[in-house]
Amino acid sequence: MRTCFRVRYAETDQMGMAYYAGYLVWFEVLRGDLMRAAGTPYPWFEEQGYMLPIVEAHIRYMSPARYDDAVEVVGWIEELKSRKVRFAYRVERLGEILADGWTIHIPVGRDGRPRGFSQELLGRLETWILGPG
Amino acid sequence: MRTCFRVRYAETDQMGMAYYAGYLVWFEVLRGDLMRAAGTPYPWFEEQGYMLPIVEAHIRYMSPARYDDAVEVVGWIEELKSRKVRFAYRVERLGEILADGWTIHIPVGRDGRPRGFSQELLGRLETWILGPG
Amino acid sequence: MRTCFRVRYAETDQMGMAYYAGYLVWFEVLRGDLMRAAGTPYPWFEEQGYMLPIVEAHIRYMSPARYDDAVEVVGWIEELKSRKVRFAYRVERLGEILADGWTIHIPVGRDGRPRGFSQELLGRLETWILGPG
Amino acid sequence: MRTCFRVRYAETDQMGMAYYAGYLVWFEVLRGDLMRAAGTPYPWFEEQGYMLPIVEAHIRYMSPARYDDAVEVVGWIEELKSRKVRFAYRVERLGEILADGWTIHIPVGRDGRPRGFSQELLGRLETWILGPG
Repeated sequence: MRTCFRVRYAETDQMGMAYYAGYLVWFEVLRGDLMRAAGTPYPWFEEQGYMLPIVEAHIRYMSPARYDDAVEVVGWIEELKSRKVRFAYRVERLGEILADGWTIHIPVGRDGRPRGFSQELLGRLETWILGPG
Repeated sequence: MRTCFRVRYAETDQMGMAYYAGYLVWFEVLRGDLMRAAGTPYPWFEEQGYMLPIVEAHIRYMSPARYDDAVEVVGWIEELKSRKVRFAYRVERLGEILADGWTIHIPVGRDGRPRGFSQELLGRLETWILGPG
Repeated sequence: MRTCFRVRYAETDQMGMAYYAGYLVWFEVLRGDLMRAAGTPYPWFEEQGYMLPIVEAHIRYMSPARYDDAVEVVGWIEELKSRKVRFAYRVERLGEILADGWTIHIPVGRDGRPRGFSQELLGRLETWILGPG
Repeated sequence: MRTCFRVRYAETDQMGMAYYAGYLVWFEVLRGDLMRAAGTPYPWFEEQGYMLPIVEAHIRYMSPARYDDAVEVVGWIEELKSRKVRFAYRVERLGEILADGWTIHIPVGRDGRPRGFSQELLGRLETWILGPG
């Protein structure tokens, strides 16, 4: 999955670069696009009573993104279990890697307690397991 | 009511100033502090089944705030009716006015429909009506 | 000019709506697209030694935008003078108006002092003056 | 070093929790407070021609922070070398750990190239090396 957008002015800081927390926002945009593409958009997911809160995030910053840069986020599912999903991401600009990272999420119910994916849902989610690109 | 904080790096942009949307965030911090000080903190408000979505906002920017500046937001209720609240704000740095503005909110219920304040709640809210500073 | 995007999860708040400050970010995305379309992208503008800080902003919120909504921002220049630019905006979802607003900016130089647009630049900017839509 | 603040409404998302990217903003607030307390506030740092861009970040999320929560970020320097600084962080609410993490930064000059800390500056920075709390 690949998501393209331009760096917003709001996302810059006084170093003249995209502020470092914004990469997590971009990762989330990718997750949303990934889930929509898989036929299980996140709002549908929430209607089923699931939420996917994060438990761990990691980012490596190689080269700064700047205002108005046309940036691409590439992302895919690296690991999928009933009680754990791991997404991987790469932020690129014209083929140059600006950053990469991963996040781990656990499915919970509306009460906030862990709630494993059903076999049927796991099956659908497996369609998301796409290599990078 | 007066709220003090320092401008965050995240709030700057590549002009080296606090980004213009952030002033609305600061206004909201002031509203939260105002409601807590009045004994009706916003979470309590939501528990009562009320939300206070915004219907109009206005901001004038006089002088830029910069990273690490110790900024004060002064705010008060300008107008209070059963179906409408108008807050006013002033952003200052060492007495210099950096910006001012106002917002109008209407109370709604959990279903999103307008829901006027009860007389009792209006009475409590009137205790918020404080002049600027 | 018309800019389309989906509401990000990061842009929602616990009311389940797009947070009110984010509309100013969307307005700025529109301005950037408008300037790029006019052949005077904002980075070029900054290279010429101009910045366009804001002096006033106004927003009316009619109906909430929600996560994943496909939102369009329509925008144009309402007023253009050597020392002042006024942009107007409308946020729509499937033709429904969610919000509208305007912002006023004054051109300044790198030293932060007002610096009127040259006649040549004014001419180029006039090509931006497009009605809504 | 310890920094205290309340979770802003702007920082919540429609899950009713503090959005996950905001923790990196809080980490940065802690870094700013740490540097100010050490007598080397970040603006001074930038005047000396240094910037401290990030190269890596890691966060573990244990328990959600919610709107209006009084949150504390505890932070310290874990590792300090001429060309690398590693900060560690813990986010707490009434003694409960909500999240922890670390970030690695490298000092660069105005031209964006690595620029090691001088011995004198290293000496000053060493005063920051404080255990957690």
